[in-house]
Amino acid sequence: MTSSAYQDLSARQQRLYRLAHLQAIAQWDQAANMPAKGNEARSLALAEMDGLLHQLATDPALAGLLDAAATEPLDDTQRANLREIRRAWRAANALPQALVEAKSLANNRCEHAWRTQRPANDWACFAPNLREVLVIARQEAELLSQSAGLSKYDALLDQYEPGMRSADIERAFAPLRQWLPGLIRDVTARQSRETVLEPVGPFPTAAQKALGLDAMKLMGFDFAAGRLDESTHPFCGGVPEDVRMTTRYREDNFLPSLMGTIHETGHGRYEQGLPRELLGQPIARARSMGIHESQSLSFEMQLGSHPAYAGLLSPLLVKHFGDQPAFEPGNLHKLLTRVQPGLIRVDADEVTYPAHILLRFDIERALIEGQVEVEDIPALWDAKMAELLGLDTRGNFKDGPMQDVHWPAGLFGYFPCYTLGAMYSAQWFAAMRAQQPDLDAQIARGELGGVFEWLSEHVWQEASRWETPELVQRASGEALNPAHFEAHLRSRYL
Amino acid sequence: MTSSAYQDLSARQQRLYRLAHLQAIAQWDQAANMPAKGNEARSLALAEMDGLLHQLATDPALAGLLDAAATEPLDDTQRANLREIRRAWRAANALPQALVEAKSLANNRCEHAWRTQRPANDWACFAPNLREVLVIARQEAELLSQSAGLSKYDALLDQYEPGMRSADIERAFAPLRQWLPGLIRDVTARQSRETVLEPVGPFPTAAQKALGLDAMKLMGFDFAAGRLDESTHPFCGGVPEDVRMTTRYREDNFLPSLMGTIHETGHGRYEQGLPRELLGQPIARARSMGIHESQSLSFEMQLGSHPAYAGLLSPLLVKHFGDQPAFEPGNLHKLLTRVQPGLIRVDADEVTYPAHILLRFDIERALIEGQVEVEDIPALWDAKMAELLGLDTRGNFKDGPMQDVHWPAGLFGYFPCYTLGAMYSAQWFAAMRAQQPDLDAQIARGELGGVFEWLSEHVWQEASRWETPELVQRASGEALNPAHFEAHLRSRYL
Repeated sequence: MTSSAYQDLSARQQRLYRLAHLQAIAQWDQAANMPAKGNEARSLALAEMDGLLHQLATDPALAGLLDAAATEPLDDTQRANLREIRRAWRAANALPQALVEAKSLANNRCEHAWRTQRPANDWACFAPNLREVLVIARQEAELLSQSAGLSKYDALLDQYEPGMRSADIERAFAPLRQWLPGLIRDVTARQSRETVLEPVGPFPTAAQKALGLDAMKLMGFDFAAGRLDESTHPFCGGVPEDVRMTTRYREDNFLPSLMGTIHETGHGRYEQGLPRELLGQPIARARSMGIHESQSLSFEMQLGSHPAYAGLLSPLLVKHFGDQPAFEPGNLHKLLTRVQPGLIRVDADEVTYPAHILLRFDIERALIEGQVEVEDIPALWDAKMAELLGLDTRGNFKDGPMQDVHWPAGLFGYFPCYTLGAMYSAQWFAAMRAQQPDLDAQIARGELGGVFEWLSEHVWQEASRWETPELVQRASGEALNPAHFEAHLRSRYL
Repeated sequence: MTSSAYQDLSARQQRLYRLAHLQAIAQWDQAANMPAKGNEARSLALAEMDGLLHQLATDPALAGLLDAAATEPLDDTQRANLREIRRAWRAANALPQALVEAKSLANNRCEHAWRTQRPANDWACFAPNLREVLVIARQEAELLSQSAGLSKYDALLDQYEPGMRSADIERAFAPLRQWLPGLIRDVTARQSRETVLEPVGPFPTAAQKALGLDAMKLMGFDFAAGRLDESTHPFCGGVPEDVRMTTRYREDNFLPSLMGTIHETGHGRYEQGLPRELLGQPIARARSMGIHESQSLSFEMQLGSHPAYAGLLSPLLVKHFGDQPAFEPGNLHKLLTRVQPGLIRVDADEVTYPAHILLRFDIERALIEGQVEVEDIPALWDAKMAELLGLDTRGNFKDGPMQDVHWPAGLFGYFPCYTLGAMYSAQWFAAMRAQQPDLDAQIARGELGGVFEWLSEHVWQEASRWETPELVQRASGEALNPAHFEAHLRSRYL
């Protein structure tokens, strides 16, 4: 039997997938376990592997194989996979290996130093590292932009949300800019008239850990194929066969960690739910960062802020912390849907969250397009926080522009995906309700299987078979429609 | 400046070192963290990387570079490094890539299944996996034996203790076979007349963990360059810049975990103490497994069974478990030096330990030379345990031939290194006492710096600069002399 060009390409993808597995575990370990003196060697090891993966992904033989495979008789799955192989190949070939390695080093160094600089509020030492990361990100954007015929920021954005342009985002975000400030005002005014009982702590870390594991069980996480650990910035890493989620704990307040864990569980189940028989091929990868966030937000917000969800969580809180009046489901629902402008994005409620994204989207686009510099960030941040949320962040870098891992890690173009994800998730639930009119009654009965099955069938199992617009159309019967998000917020909060 | 052949070789070693870093962390994670369903993908990833490292290590260009470098003007360090590069190259070239990959797969699968088969005492399911591992180990031994002109078992042994042959080991072990049974009889008879107070448990795992960390501090472990976790079989892994030690806990008895932790700390400090400026080059690697064990046994036995050491541990036990009469230093020393034939090698005292090694050495040599098969192991094990230690192990596979990770992981030829290490460590302390007559007084004062400095200067910093016999000669002023081990045991236990 002679091997076809497609088979050759497919075997090469399998090889990349296996090597990237080691990279994913080492990156998770770097955030969750690694002691300080291990960082230099780890950064060098990750950079070496980045370079090697890049070398394999840019093997000159690939161009011919891709062309040859296109003329072979392939079934639909193979053809979709070939499209994704070509997409990855085009992206990899836009960057020279030296830049890939320099990027890995600069990002690793900046991110590692950030872990101690952030608690120390040390903007002065952080800024030069971030400048190095930005210089490389701009070079990357320039090269990608030339190869794809896109603007510089759009070229970075395309890596996280293939097919989306800043113009599309601006189109979805423009109504948001209009109605968001008014909605925040109306909701906070309405909630200021409500009485909410505060949970009384402290909430020991060990009890919070056990609660988090129970919440993951409620949300169907497979513990034989993943685990939960701690890191400074919560994330969901690892590989589909072994998902590594992290969270962080504050003993005075368990809600950020609990809801963060439920959020990451959405990411984790997407990965665990990808089509196993295709794992290793690009068609089996999660579709995009926006679609990924649509899963975490389906878990954290569509379910988490559902009026019936508090009834499912309440017994778990009583189990791990003992009973107290604040855990009564009606009060718990108020706690889970409390809207309050705050400094920290990852702790934000779903109404003010988009304001954090508008701010970051505006700043990072200007950074990449060269309209502003790292030195300008604090003043821009202060101005936009005052304008969007009425908060003063002057001099408070650690809760301002130093709060996120994204920029230190060089992830420019990622932020808008969070709000795209919020919009997609509202659209999923609108579609689910249309197909399953008793959906809310199911949730009230603690039967979440209907939600998980819908997500599995329409999103997880589809993986990267379709490009994003087609996935959205097939799953929900219409293109991205930001009106669902507005309707969701108005119905839940007003 | 043109690059020399030596510089080229050296850069390639650096690259291998960096990629092997990821492999080391993924292997540690596999034992310490990984959930069950992650194993198939992890095994494939590790095998892919094994294959890749093997491919890089057998690049056809290396033969010419090695010959060219030999004619270049090199300093002593470079020349010793070149010798070690050539040693690794010769070993790598003895095996075809397909065998390297098959070995990685079979060993990973067998070891992973063993983790559940051992507690289930499931020899029937374990045996076929081990047979697969053995088939590959025999092929490997055959190929290495042809390339090195050694017997099959010697060819495997050479990987762990370069330069040592079974004949050398038999020469060192022959007197041991003579005096060990009598010594065990005399010591147990003497100890049967002593009264020893048993510590009263339970000893909560959390307190044991904290105690273990304090013991590691006492032994000078650098926690900014390593950590302690849990795994079924304790080991010391990771990389010199980030040492990953593991232990396991039993709440009814803290001593096995505590002394196991002190043992692994010896391995860990050897790795942490390797010459940093040379890391990445083969000359900076730990010399051999026997020399490695000489460090762990210097910590666990030469120090751990020293009459003054109980005085250092006693306050730590009181701190973590509260005071009790059994923790009084005199009684604690008796507990730390209690000799009792038992089933489990890793829990054995230093007097009966060599019996476990004689048994394994005899069986594994016969397995590799093809004189016995996997099916024969239980009967051989039962016979030798009865003969050497007077114990009945029939039907008890989990505490018999299934107790160790070595064979499931394909590490044939490793076991004799433990007793070679015990012999080297006795020789180190004999040399130290000759140079520092007040050594025992220093230890009694809790001043362990003199011991650590001697080990650092004569062993850790020397790394692989000399071949083993020269390292031993330089450090102790004489060749391997098993009389020091006998003298140590007689003076400490009779």
